[in-house]
Amino acid sequence: MGTESGRNTTGAGPRTGAASVRARPADVLVLGGGLIGLVTAWRAAQRGLRTEVVDPAPGGGAARVAAGMLAAVTELHHGEEALLRLNLRSAARYPAFVEELAEAGGRDVGHRTSGTLAVALDADDRAQLRELHALQLRHGLESEWLTGRECRRLEPMLAPSVRGGLRVDGDHQVDPRRLAAALVAACGRAGVAFVRSSAARLSVVRDRAVGAVLDDGTERRADRTVLATGSYSGALAGVPDALRPPVRPVKGQVVRLRVPPAHGPFLSRTVRAVVRGGAVYLVPRADGELVVGASSEELGWDTTVTAGGVYELLRDAHELVPGVTELPLAETGAGLRPATPDNAPLLGPSGLPGLHLATGHHRNGVLLTPVTGDAMGELLATGELPAYARPFSADRFGAGGSDAGGSAGGAPGDDPRRTTRQEAL
Amino acid sequence: MGTESGRNTTGAGPRTGAASVRARPADVLVLGGGLIGLVTAWRAAQRGLRTEVVDPAPGGGAARVAAGMLAAVTELHHGEEALLRLNLRSAARYPAFVEELAEAGGRDVGHRTSGTLAVALDADDRAQLRELHALQLRHGLESEWLTGRECRRLEPMLAPSVRGGLRVDGDHQVDPRRLAAALVAACGRAGVAFVRSSAARLSVVRDRAVGAVLDDGTERRADRTVLATGSYSGALAGVPDALRPPVRPVKGQVVRLRVPPAHGPFLSRTVRAVVRGGAVYLVPRADGELVVGASSEELGWDTTVTAGGVYELLRDAHELVPGVTELPLAETGAGLRPATPDNAPLLGPSGLPGLHLATGHHRNGVLLTPVTGDAMGELLATGELPAYARPFSADRFGAGGSDAGGSAGGAPGDDPRRTTRQEAL
Repeated sequence: MGTESGRNTTGAGPRTGAASVRARPADVLVLGGGLIGLVTAWRAAQRGLRTEVVDPAPGGGAARVAAGMLAAVTELHHGEEALLRLNLRSAARYPAFVEELAEAGGRDVGHRTSGTLAVALDADDRAQLRELHALQLRHGLESEWLTGRECRRLEPMLAPSVRGGLRVDGDHQVDPRRLAAALVAACGRAGVAFVRSSAARLSVVRDRAVGAVLDDGTERRADRTVLATGSYSGALAGVPDALRPPVRPVKGQVVRLRVPPAHGPFLSRTVRAVVRGGAVYLVPRADGELVVGASSEELGWDTTVTAGGVYELLRDAHELVPGVTELPLAETGAGLRPATPDNAPLLGPSGLPGLHLATGHHRNGVLLTPVTGDAMGELLATGELPAYARPFSADRFGAGGSDAGGSAGGAPGDDPRRTTRQEAL
Repeated sequence: MGTESGRNTTGAGPRTGAASVRARPADVLVLGGGLIGLVTAWRAAQRGLRTEVVDPAPGGGAARVAAGMLAAVTELHHGEEALLRLNLRSAARYPAFVEELAEAGGRDVGHRTSGTLAVALDADDRAQLRELHALQLRHGLESEWLTGRECRRLEPMLAPSVRGGLRVDGDHQVDPRRLAAALVAACGRAGVAFVRSSAARLSVVRDRAVGAVLDDGTERRADRTVLATGSYSGALAGVPDALRPPVRPVKGQVVRLRVPPAHGPFLSRTVRAVVRGGAVYLVPRADGELVVGASSEELGWDTTVTAGGVYELLRDAHELVPGVTELPLAETGAGLRPATPDNAPLLGPSGLPGLHLATGHHRNGVLLTPVTGDAMGELLATGELPAYARPFSADRFGAGGSDAGGSAGGAPGDDPRRTTRQEAL
């Protein structure tokens, strides 16, 4: 088992610089070093808590694949008003968050405020987009209806068949890989210790979580344990069945193209649409990367990149922006969204003393990173979840949660072979 | 400059085991270590000639990308009867060749004799396939017409839309990567020395080729120099313009899928078709690899894998065999075919004393590897090209050849942006 830290604080009090051999349990043990686990650990360490993160490869996970859209407005769905409020809060937090993180992590995170254009290719899509626009306006959100011609004036690479769209200048983007790298660096500098292993089982003593046994058989003890293992959050041994978080994996396949520097402008903002019932988006980075996503498949923990996944993404992207066929294909990948029954995250107490949840962020993990850090930092430092995060506590799914979770409790390896595309923007 | 050899024979006579510092020029200097250069060197060394191969990465080149179809019969084209004879000779040589090479190279080369099925998806394709069948029969080739139902009985994964096809049991396959690796090993064992560099300029003294200056500025001298640099053969400095071989690069993009072992049989033989005017083939290897090819693009020496190239291959493969969408996508790649004005290779004397050609094999490089080795070995050992190879000497294109070559003389980096798909089987 390897541990490493910007300052060697493991079990030896913060900022003493002394190496240690688990003389004392940590204050906080975060299971999972994705964006959510990292931001939680960073905020905890900033509050003076001795914090450890357990992950074989911190900064990996869904952040390696995600496109990084900060799409509070274009991802709005009927019946998700509570989630909208949290998304908007986090979107509003982003500028200050990335400024603080770039400083703390010593690197740029690719935050780009060039906006989003959601377009429609046929009459059905347009009707659906009109409904979304009405919903946005009812919630007081900024979103402007454009004709097809106006869309193409904004983004000349769009297909002639584009029949209208929504201009949402407030939906931005960030590069999740850079974000994760900056969080790893910021954690290290704040004294977080990284334990490069996986949690095999939650340690429970007298009905209280006290840490975790790792894959290598060693145990890490802590006063508070945070479950932040994304799509695997429902599968940790040792969590009482009734309290198991109702999180299931939703696979997303993504293709990364490159706009050669000689090519000149290709897209100036994120472009998205629903094509044949599936959502497709193109997210152009400042460095020339163009991310095309994403499938939405319920296949258990499978992360295979398939011929069909890549084919459908390229087909739909080509229909939206025909010129993509000229671009070099740089990379393909698949990740797992940690989905919950209501598409909103699980934040705060789990029902088992000593165990907290920071998981279930589904499509909004990148967007919700700042506010999750705020809420979890406050909870871990004070014992109180802030009011804005309380609608997202685990108890909203009844006594446990697994009953409400459908397939959430399935074991890794389950493969129901149900495939769907995202049915709405 | 690194040299390496199974036996250190460089410049010191064959099989003495003595190291050397270019005490004597080699008998044969082969420029290019692709399949054609390697088989030429192997055969030369077997004849007792001191042989060197110049290549930064022997066994690379188009062999890394090619599907390895041995398709003398299904690749038949009107007006290419001379090439057909050479292709058939090489196809007939294959079983003995792979047996000898597997022994000499100490490894299997993935030779698979399970045959080929060329199918048609619509009435136009069927008419075209009927014409091909008639042409095949006129040449006395074995090819059986099947109804759509019969095609699907043979290959149950075929689309219901398949309307007929040609069963050609004599068109086999080999794995070009394994073939190249076996040739590298066989060369090493036969005493060929590898010079890991590139030829920058042909050395010419008193109107005779005497070797080449390499990228690192050193020179290798030899009694006979063989130009076998594939699609770059027309671009070597120092070759008199009038004698420059009329070879141009034709880009091919290829996708490699995998059939998981649990999947069971997918395709039992090579399946090919013309879809929307473009040729598509699926070549199933015994080890589960399924190669899907190939675009045919005239873009100079560009080897970028593009979104459009991958999209069209997957689209056409899906139309032919819908089940491919389920398969994992393992790899994408692009290679360059060395094309000539008549699609046939250039073998033997170049018109410049001391310089021989073994290049221009276009789509048939893998198929023609055995017979090219035979012919070049004979030429280098005896000075006489065998009769069956004489129709493929460079003088068939007139005084020089570059005039007949169209864009053949263009410099690397030219990018005419002409894109076509193969217009026929």
